[in-house]
Amino acid sequence: MSPTLDDVYAAAERIGPYIHRTPVFTSAAIDELVGAHVIFKCENLQKIGAFKIRGASNAVLSLSEYAVQSGVATHSSGNHAAALAQAARWRGIKATVVMPENAPAVKVAAVRGYGARVELCKPTLQARESTLASIVSETNASVVHPYNDVRVIAGQGTVALEMLEQATLDAIIVPVGGGGLLSGIALTTKPLKSGTLVYGAEPENVDDAYRSLQSGKLMPAPNATSIADGLLTALGDITFPIIRRDVAGIMTVSEVDIIAAMRLIWERLKLLVEPSAAVPLAALMVNSAQFAGKQVGIVLSGGNVDLDNLPW
Amino acid sequence: MSPTLDDVYAAAERIGPYIHRTPVFTSAAIDELVGAHVIFKCENLQKIGAFKIRGASNAVLSLSEYAVQSGVATHSSGNHAAALAQAARWRGIKATVVMPENAPAVKVAAVRGYGARVELCKPTLQARESTLASIVSETNASVVHPYNDVRVIAGQGTVALEMLEQATLDAIIVPVGGGGLLSGIALTTKPLKSGTLVYGAEPENVDDAYRSLQSGKLMPAPNATSIADGLLTALGDITFPIIRRDVAGIMTVSEVDIIAAMRLIWERLKLLVEPSAAVPLAALMVNSAQFAGKQVGIVLSGGNVDLDNLPW
Repeated sequence: MSPTLDDVYAAAERIGPYIHRTPVFTSAAIDELVGAHVIFKCENLQKIGAFKIRGASNAVLSLSEYAVQSGVATHSSGNHAAALAQAARWRGIKATVVMPENAPAVKVAAVRGYGARVELCKPTLQARESTLASIVSETNASVVHPYNDVRVIAGQGTVALEMLEQATLDAIIVPVGGGGLLSGIALTTKPLKSGTLVYGAEPENVDDAYRSLQSGKLMPAPNATSIADGLLTALGDITFPIIRRDVAGIMTVSEVDIIAAMRLIWERLKLLVEPSAAVPLAALMVNSAQFAGKQVGIVLSGGNVDLDNLPW
Repeated sequence: MSPTLDDVYAAAERIGPYIHRTPVFTSAAIDELVGAHVIFKCENLQKIGAFKIRGASNAVLSLSEYAVQSGVATHSSGNHAAALAQAARWRGIKATVVMPENAPAVKVAAVRGYGARVELCKPTLQARESTLASIVSETNASVVHPYNDVRVIAGQGTVALEMLEQATLDAIIVPVGGGGLLSGIALTTKPLKSGTLVYGAEPENVDDAYRSLQSGKLMPAPNATSIADGLLTALGDITFPIIRRDVAGIMTVSEVDIIAAMRLIWERLKLLVEPSAAVPLAALMVNSAQFAGKQVGIVLSGGNVDLDNLPW
């Protein structure tokens, strides 16, 4: 039930013709500020503006010819929705996505722009799941979960394959919401580079991954809010065991730290990143002593930010 | 008195160890929107966040050992100031820059951050020139003009050397203020690729280049204002003859067009650009029929934008 390094290699081959091999950026000013050499993996420059296209396209391209006739469906706060819509368009099949009615307008518009049907629902996990269930019973669509899915996790793991080729890293810090990206990167990195430690970073307000690792059991944070709207979800029963096994630790950061890191990335790298993508740099800045002098990889997970609602 | 292609090659060799060979970006969504294949040259990712470091560093590195002892000085609305400060730091000499008191705070802070002395003055060309004259008489510093200087023009021309290696181009559209970048790119492109036409783009509000080319003589627009604050200057007596000789035309765009193009670049390329850098894409969008199906190079001239004063 857990994806392996071979699954990640297979995903890389499957999705390679569709996705970008994203560049890495560096900044002398940021290096000086944090006292480490920071390598930013620019998944904000990925297709659909986020890493999510990797997992979604791996799942859609893995479906049988029979299954795809009924299309695909999912619920998502945004980037996975756009990713599934784009992946479905590539394969020429139908996609339906359930989105919370408070999702950023730019993300809802993007999903519709990729040709998917959008169903808005109340912004609770329960409403999302019940709306999705009724769509599936109506259409028989294949569900592609945003993170708790072995095909999705294997697809996200391809980020690590590229990073480990692009730089020598002592550590990689990854934003963690549902844990698809973090588990994919961790399960890829550990067998390939045992000396490269993988850390998760999440908002203090939504510290379910931190508390779940502390307690050894899933501890959702149901009604939490954060400016990092991509990280409001909780770990799943597939991502959690991988994270327990392969992740070196989880760091939490305040909302103020997230906004400061986001602004620093905008001003110094000249790159738009969404708040969720700034969480790892915020964690590095708060824990800079731990990483002094190290080569640290940071995953800039996405760049789909609503320019009419900036936090400064 | 006019720089040549050989001067541009010499500049490339001189500044190569200090500056970035910046990447080019493309966007399928923007291509579809404008009906051309657009290649964006990312000088917003250049050192100091703008192409200006090319010309400034070429000038500073060209100075004699005797001359540098008195340092360098200039006046600039922003990016040239930061560029001269950075170039002076690389060479280990003093720099003094005269800046208008309404220059964006982020640009003034950047100049001081590079170790230069900043003298603020009234935001008129006259005040800038008289303040600079008094500094020069006091310090005997070498003046590095922001654009009307053969060493600066040759340095800016290195942008074209890179672009012509990075892509096959039917046209290049360049923002024009004082004309240092436009003249440098035009004098480099014409002898290397006679089939690649070079165009200038400027705000309607500050259409001195357009009117000067129409009339055949310098026509400054003294009190003009535009959101494209880097383009408020007028052509000089060195840049103008080159532009008359080597540029295919000047296009003008409205403030609304500039803001729309800037936002499109932010949303689609995930790149921060300053308003001046969005003027060429605005010109392409307004004149899309003329460039239909062509390979069009766009110079994203800089990314130093004040995040507290965005135009939306």
